[in-house]
Amino acid sequence: MTRMHVPVPLRWNDLDAYGHVNNAAMFVLLEEARIHAFWSTDEALAQSTMREGSGTLSLVARQEIEYVAPIPYLRDPLDVQMWIGHLGGASFSACYEVHSPASAPDDVLYARAQTTMVLVDVSTQRPRRLTDAERTAWEPYLEEPVAFTRR
Amino acid sequence: MTRMHVPVPLRWNDLDAYGHVNNAAMFVLLEEARIHAFWSTDEALAQSTMREGSGTLSLVARQEIEYVAPIPYLRDPLDVQMWIGHLGGASFSACYEVHSPASAPDDVLYARAQTTMVLVDVSTQRPRRLTDAERTAWEPYLEEPVAFTRR
Amino acid sequence: MTRMHVPVPLRWNDLDAYGHVNNAAMFVLLEEARIHAFWSTDEALAQSTMREGSGTLSLVARQEIEYVAPIPYLRDPLDVQMWIGHLGGASFSACYEVHSPASAPDDVLYARAQTTMVLVDVSTQRPRRLTDAERTAWEPYLEEPVAFTRR
Amino acid sequence: MTRMHVPVPLRWNDLDAYGHVNNAAMFVLLEEARIHAFWSTDEALAQSTMREGSGTLSLVARQEIEYVAPIPYLRDPLDVQMWIGHLGGASFSACYEVHSPASAPDDVLYARAQTTMVLVDVSTQRPRRLTDAERTAWEPYLEEPVAFTRR
Repeated sequence: MTRMHVPVPLRWNDLDAYGHVNNAAMFVLLEEARIHAFWSTDEALAQSTMREGSGTLSLVARQEIEYVAPIPYLRDPLDVQMWIGHLGGASFSACYEVHSPASAPDDVLYARAQTTMVLVDVSTQRPRRLTDAERTAWEPYLEEPVAFTRR
Repeated sequence: MTRMHVPVPLRWNDLDAYGHVNNAAMFVLLEEARIHAFWSTDEALAQSTMREGSGTLSLVARQEIEYVAPIPYLRDPLDVQMWIGHLGGASFSACYEVHSPASAPDDVLYARAQTTMVLVDVSTQRPRRLTDAERTAWEPYLEEPVAFTRR
Repeated sequence: MTRMHVPVPLRWNDLDAYGHVNNAAMFVLLEEARIHAFWSTDEALAQSTMREGSGTLSLVARQEIEYVAPIPYLRDPLDVQMWIGHLGGASFSACYEVHSPASAPDDVLYARAQTTMVLVDVSTQRPRRLTDAERTAWEPYLEEPVAFTRR
Repeated sequence: MTRMHVPVPLRWNDLDAYGHVNNAAMFVLLEEARIHAFWSTDEALAQSTMREGSGTLSLVARQEIEYVAPIPYLRDPLDVQMWIGHLGGASFSACYEVHSPASAPDDVLYARAQTTMVLVDVSTQRPRRLTDAERTAWEPYLEEPVAFTRR
């Protein structure tokens, strides 16, 4: 089982009036994890997520999240564990477990989540197939998708 | 079929570098729809979502969304249609369809989503049961949950 | 003295862990007020602030704000009073006072602020002069700039 | 001249539809710089900025910023240079210059800014005086305030 471990720092501004990381802010953290993971595995896709890109938009088609425990303010970056749950023709699923910082004495699982991304060709505005390079980059991280417990 | 229609205005800041409403911003819009819906159906719960509240926190336990079409910048408020998909002991599901503004010539469905909320007693920090008043307030909006097409 | 009164609704997500509208969120609210004011006075400029625009970017060059009182969560829209403090060659200053909702029993001044905007031609990426139409649209709202008390 | 150099990572979500770091997002970045600077100089104050704090709220009373150049998406953290421009009885000014990442071949100044903070006693909700420990922690960073060029 090969997971990427992406350290994602919180911002104080991620907290809401309950003093927890806001439920919507979690998706910004997942987006950051995803972008950083792409950098380290697939430079071309990374470019496409950053607008000045390679002619590809990577659009979010679906998201699902289970919040296991509220996240307080933490100085050290969350340990977002990420893998690929599905490699389709023009889409793929990024899977995540959001854990307490690697520096924390005890490991806490805060959330599990899954995002389905579709690659879209900017010129045609239609989905485009994953390239061989993309498949090769991600296959090492292919694993069972997240098992949601409360669907 | 009784749905609440909650008008939710976009902010320019909801757009990301793709010029679409950001995938995470969508959850802020759903949160707003939920809070406004509570105001009109259940004042006590509305208070609890606003911190100075009634001794109850309403925590998000689960979320799921399918993005059907990207949302461009729109001057008029989105028409967020909301109903209750499930009324449990200490939890309930808010269901949403995010539609184009009521003023738009054609109706566009942008997204369908579902949020599971758990009511937590502030003093004990444990889930508390829905009150009869809450059940009575929401039963008129009880319907089948969202049928996600791409799970 | 002619001020525009722009109703700007808060979002619960504007609150930070102190339970007040976050200092950075205030600038999102001012941005919203500005865009809405442009709609009602100058459609061409309004377009330019919304990307699909008229070939003009309206960039923020400078901002200044004094927070007079913390803003709690409010259901009714803030009354953002706005006027033009300066009309330059290629720039102008938007001035604001952020007040409690028009529906509130007592008027509270929460903040005063000023934003200097520069109009930039998209094709040349250089500042462009205000058009006569823009000057004509804004002159009715020209007033003394904000008098900051704690500079 | 002693400045703190605080590395502040961007998020893709900081970009707006113009593809630049949004003007309001800049204040979130300054807030992060400030909090991180406090951690390294004054643990007690750091606690107070994080809600579970020491009985002190640190409220923003005033902010001023000049945007010198638009900030594109950058993978490496911005180099936020920070110092203290004023140490008052119950308030102080944090001064900033936002520079390109330390790793960039050429140094670009993106913005200069200043924030006036007031320390408020949670129990009385009134300003409280800076402690001797706070003065001692910050005096090494005391310098001339930001010289704004376009006031």
